[in-house]
Amino acid sequence: MARYVIGLDYGTDSARALVVNAETGEILASSVKNYPRWSRGLYCDPQANQWRQHPKDYLEVMEFTVKDALAKCAPEVAPNVVGIAFDTTGSTPAFADESGTPLAMSDEYAADPDAMFVLWKDHTAIKEAAEINEACKASAIDYSMYEGGIYSSEWFWAKALHILRNSPEIATKASTIVECCEWLPAVLTGVTNHKDIIRSRCAQGHKSMWSQKWGGLPPEEFLAGVDPLLAGWRAKLFDKTETADKPVGYLCPEWADRLGLSVSVVVAGGAFDCHMGAVGAGVKPGTLVRVIGTSTCDVMVASYEDIGDKCIRGICGQVDGSVIPGMVGLEAGQSSFGDVYAMFRKVLEWPLRTVSGLEGDALAEACENIIPSLTVEAEKIPISESAMLATDWVNGRRTPDANPLVKGAITGFTLGTTAPMIFRALVEATAFGTKAIHDRFVEEGVQIDEVIGIGGIALKSPFVMQVMSDVLGKPIKVCKTMQACALGAAMFAATAAGVYERVEDAIEAMNSGFSKEYIPAPERTEIYSMLNKKYLDLGSFTETYFAKA
Amino acid sequence: MARYVIGLDYGTDSARALVVNAETGEILASSVKNYPRWSRGLYCDPQANQWRQHPKDYLEVMEFTVKDALAKCAPEVAPNVVGIAFDTTGSTPAFADESGTPLAMSDEYAADPDAMFVLWKDHTAIKEAAEINEACKASAIDYSMYEGGIYSSEWFWAKALHILRNSPEIATKASTIVECCEWLPAVLTGVTNHKDIIRSRCAQGHKSMWSQKWGGLPPEEFLAGVDPLLAGWRAKLFDKTETADKPVGYLCPEWADRLGLSVSVVVAGGAFDCHMGAVGAGVKPGTLVRVIGTSTCDVMVASYEDIGDKCIRGICGQVDGSVIPGMVGLEAGQSSFGDVYAMFRKVLEWPLRTVSGLEGDALAEACENIIPSLTVEAEKIPISESAMLATDWVNGRRTPDANPLVKGAITGFTLGTTAPMIFRALVEATAFGTKAIHDRFVEEGVQIDEVIGIGGIALKSPFVMQVMSDVLGKPIKVCKTMQACALGAAMFAATAAGVYERVEDAIEAMNSGFSKEYIPAPERTEIYSMLNKKYLDLGSFTETYFAKA
Repeated sequence: MARYVIGLDYGTDSARALVVNAETGEILASSVKNYPRWSRGLYCDPQANQWRQHPKDYLEVMEFTVKDALAKCAPEVAPNVVGIAFDTTGSTPAFADESGTPLAMSDEYAADPDAMFVLWKDHTAIKEAAEINEACKASAIDYSMYEGGIYSSEWFWAKALHILRNSPEIATKASTIVECCEWLPAVLTGVTNHKDIIRSRCAQGHKSMWSQKWGGLPPEEFLAGVDPLLAGWRAKLFDKTETADKPVGYLCPEWADRLGLSVSVVVAGGAFDCHMGAVGAGVKPGTLVRVIGTSTCDVMVASYEDIGDKCIRGICGQVDGSVIPGMVGLEAGQSSFGDVYAMFRKVLEWPLRTVSGLEGDALAEACENIIPSLTVEAEKIPISESAMLATDWVNGRRTPDANPLVKGAITGFTLGTTAPMIFRALVEATAFGTKAIHDRFVEEGVQIDEVIGIGGIALKSPFVMQVMSDVLGKPIKVCKTMQACALGAAMFAATAAGVYERVEDAIEAMNSGFSKEYIPAPERTEIYSMLNKKYLDLGSFTETYFAKA
Repeated sequence: MARYVIGLDYGTDSARALVVNAETGEILASSVKNYPRWSRGLYCDPQANQWRQHPKDYLEVMEFTVKDALAKCAPEVAPNVVGIAFDTTGSTPAFADESGTPLAMSDEYAADPDAMFVLWKDHTAIKEAAEINEACKASAIDYSMYEGGIYSSEWFWAKALHILRNSPEIATKASTIVECCEWLPAVLTGVTNHKDIIRSRCAQGHKSMWSQKWGGLPPEEFLAGVDPLLAGWRAKLFDKTETADKPVGYLCPEWADRLGLSVSVVVAGGAFDCHMGAVGAGVKPGTLVRVIGTSTCDVMVASYEDIGDKCIRGICGQVDGSVIPGMVGLEAGQSSFGDVYAMFRKVLEWPLRTVSGLEGDALAEACENIIPSLTVEAEKIPISESAMLATDWVNGRRTPDANPLVKGAITGFTLGTTAPMIFRALVEATAFGTKAIHDRFVEEGVQIDEVIGIGGIALKSPFVMQVMSDVLGKPIKVCKTMQACALGAAMFAATAAGVYERVEDAIEAMNSGFSKEYIPAPERTEIYSMLNKKYLDLGSFTETYFAKA
C-alpha cells in the first residue's frame, strides 16, 4: 500500500497544498488559495510599509487547499496520508496568549494589526533594528554574528520591540511570540499551552539570534539593555529549538476531522520556504540552490568536518540544522533580482501611463509586454567588454557584506543607447551579483560543485538563466517541479512520519529531477570575466562615494 | 534717412535672413527656408555618418529668404540696405575650381557628394583625424594647440584628406578648398579667381590650424608628412585670413539684381554661427555666451592684456579675432546637452514604439510629449544630496579636456526610481558639465562676470536654465531675440558698411537686450556644490575605468 504526504507552502500572497507519493515523490494533486483578508488589503499600510496577516487567513486557506487537493486524488489517498509539513515566510512572528494562540484570534483583538502576524516584508521596525545593531556592536559577543552581522528590521526582535512600544496592551496580554511556521504545526497538533510549541531551528536560528553557542536566545541582560521593554521576554519564550524532520505530534481530532485525515498523521516541524525549497531542489554539500524571484535566496549546506566552527564572512546566516539536520545551513541572497528588472519596467511604464493615452486593459497589456519584448531584443545584442555596465543594488545589498545603503548604477550611455541595451546591462548586473555570492562562498572555503535554480525566474527566463550560467562559467540546472518548496515540505513530512530515516534519503527518493540545464559558453565567460572586474570596481566606487548614510 | 543691414544665418537644416535697422538693431523682418536637396536626404548616408550639402541649396535659399524678408518691409528699406553678412556652420569645406566655385556647381560633378560642402557633423574622416593627431603629437610644435590639442574628424584637414583619398578625380580637378562662410561672400562680390577669396579668421583659426604664430597654415613638411596626398595643398590655399568686420567687397551686379539690392551694398567677411551669435548676444571680456541646443558652444573674448600668449588649457580653440577683432576669441562646449535629454527620450520612446500599439500621429504626439511631461514632474522633485547623480558625456566630452571615448553614467537607482527622477539627474548633469567649463575658464585666469544664454533650450526650458543658474551659483541672462546669430551677422554687416567703427559699437547700439534673468537660490547652490564634487569624482572614475579605447 502506497503512503502519501502533504506539503504546505505558505507564501506571501497565497498558500499551496501538495499531495505527494511519499515513496516516489510523484505529485498527485495541488491546490492554491489566496489569503482572503490580505487580498482585500486589510490591516496593511503600504505608505508605512506595514504588512500584517490575519491568523484566520492561514487557517481558512489550509482547510480549503488540503481538502481541495485531496478531492482531486483517488479515494484511497486520504486514508493513507502519513505526514504533513509546513514551510512559511519568515521572520513572520505574532504575539500570542497563554495557549500559544495569536491574540488576533480573540474577538477583542480581531482587528488589531499588532495582534496579527507581522509579515516578513513589514518594515515598521527600522528604528528598533538600528538599536539592536548598536547593542550588538557594543556587546562583547556580537549576537548577530551567525545572522550576517547586521540585524534586519524584518526580523523577530526588531518587530517584537516595535509592537511592545506601539501597543502596551498587547505587551501586557501576550504570553509569548510565535513564528508562523511554528504556530501552524501547533494548531494541527492541538497544543493548548504555549510552552508546548516546538520551536523552529530554522526560524529562530536565522532570525532571533538563537544559538547553541550561547545557550539559546541572547542573555537577559543584553535584551533588557536594548530596551527595558524586552526585560523578562527571554524567560517567557523558549530555550530549545528543533529541526523540521522531527515530529511535533499527531493530528488532533478536531483538525483531522476538518481536513478529512486520520489522527495517525504525523505533523513535522516547520521551517522557512527557501530552506525547505532547497531540500525540495535536492541540496547537498557542494550544491548552491538559488530561489530566484524578485530577490534571491541562496542556500547551501556544509558538514562540520568541512567548515567546523568557522563563521562564514558576509553571508546572511549560518545555522546548525536549518536546512538538513546534522549539517550547517548557509543562507545568502541578492536583495533585488527580478526587482531590478521591475525597476526598469516601472521607468518604461512611465511614458505608457503618462503620454500614451492608453487606459485600463490596453494599458495593462502594454505594461505586461515590456519585459518579454525587452528580452527578445536584449538577447540579440552581442556581449561586449565595452558595452554598458550596471550594478544590481537597487534595494541595497544583502550578500556579500550586507549594506542597505548602496544603490544601483548604470554606465556606458551614448547617443545610441537603447532600452534593450540597458535591460541587457541590468540582466548582466544581476548575474554579476550572483557571481559575487558564489565567489564569496568559495573564498570562504565552501566548495560549489553544482548550481540549481528554482523559483519563477529560473523557470520562465531562459535569457536570464543563460547569462547567469555564462557569467558564473558553470552549468545551472533547473528543477522540473515548479513547487520545490512544497515538495521540500513533503520530504520533511515523509521523514517525520518515518518513511525515511534521514532527510537525505527523502531527497534521494522523492526529488523531481531537472527540466533543463544551462551550459556556459567559454568565449562568453571570458568576456564576462573582464566585465566582472569592472562590475566590482564600479560597485566599490559607488559604495564608497554614494552610500554614506 | 535710416540705414539697414541684412544678417544671414546658415544653420544645419535651413538659412534665415534678418533685415535689421543698422542704427537701432530693430528687427524689421525675417525669412527662413529649408535647404531643398538636403530636406530630401540627398547625398547623405546616415549609416556612414556622411552629411553633404549642395552649394545650389545655399544659393537658392539665399535668394528666396533675402527677397522674402525684404518684401515684408516698407518699400524704402531695400534701397537703404548698406551691408550684408553671413554666419554659417563649420567646419563645412568644399573642393573648388580655379574660380573658387565648388565642383558640384558644374554639371560634371553636380551629383558627386565629394564635390559638395562637407557639413560640420560629417564623420567620414575619423581615420584621417586620428592620423593628424598622431602627427601633431609627434611634431616639435603641436599645430592643434590653439584648437584644444585634439584635432576632430569634423574639421578642415581631416575632411580634405578623406576626400583626396576617396576621390582622386576631385583631387586632380580642384584648385582650392573653401569654407561655406568664405564662399557665400565671394559669390555675392563676384569673385572669379580663388586667390581673391577672403579667408575667414574664425573658420581657419579654429579649424585648419592656421595661426599667426607659425605664419599661417602648418608647414608643407608637416602636412605632406601626414600623407603625401596633402603635399602642395598649402601653397594652393592661402596665407592670410581676415576678421569678419572687414568688407570683402560690394555686391556684384548679378547678385544685386537677383536680391533686389544696390551695388553699393557692402559684403562683410564670414564667420561661424556661434561666434557671430556671441556678438549678437553682446559678448565682451568677462561675458560667457552659451549657445544651448543639442550641444553647447561656449564663447568668450579676452584682451591680450589679460591673457597674453597663454594657451588656455583644455578648451576647444583660441583664435585672435575670431569673435571680436582685436581680442582673442575663446571657444569651449559640451558635446551633448539637449542630446542628453534626447537620449533618454529615445529610451522612453521604446515602449511607445514597441508595446503601446500606437502608430502615426498618435505615436508622434505621445513622443513629443515626453520631455514636456518629464519637465513638469522633474521640477517637483526636491534637490537632494543623496539623490541620483549622472554625467553628461553621452557623446564624449569636448570641454574641459576633450575625450571622445568617455560615456555617460547614472547612479542612485532604487526600487523607487522614476523616469522624472532620472530626467532630473540628467538635467543636473548637463548643468554640472556647464560648471566644469565655467570653472576651467576661471582656473585659467579668464574671469567670468556675466553668463548669457542663447539658442533653443535657453529660450524654451526655464527648468533647465534655473538648474543651470543654481549649479553655477550665478545669474544667467537670456537674450530677447531668438535670432542672436543672424543679429550678430547684422552687426558685422553694419560695421563692415561703416555704420560703426568697431564691432563693440555695433553691439552697444544694436543689441536686443534680455527677456529674462535666472537668479540662483543660495540654498540650492550649496547642495549642488556638494553634488558637483560627486559629479567630478564619478566622471574621473568612469573615465579611468571605462573610457579606454
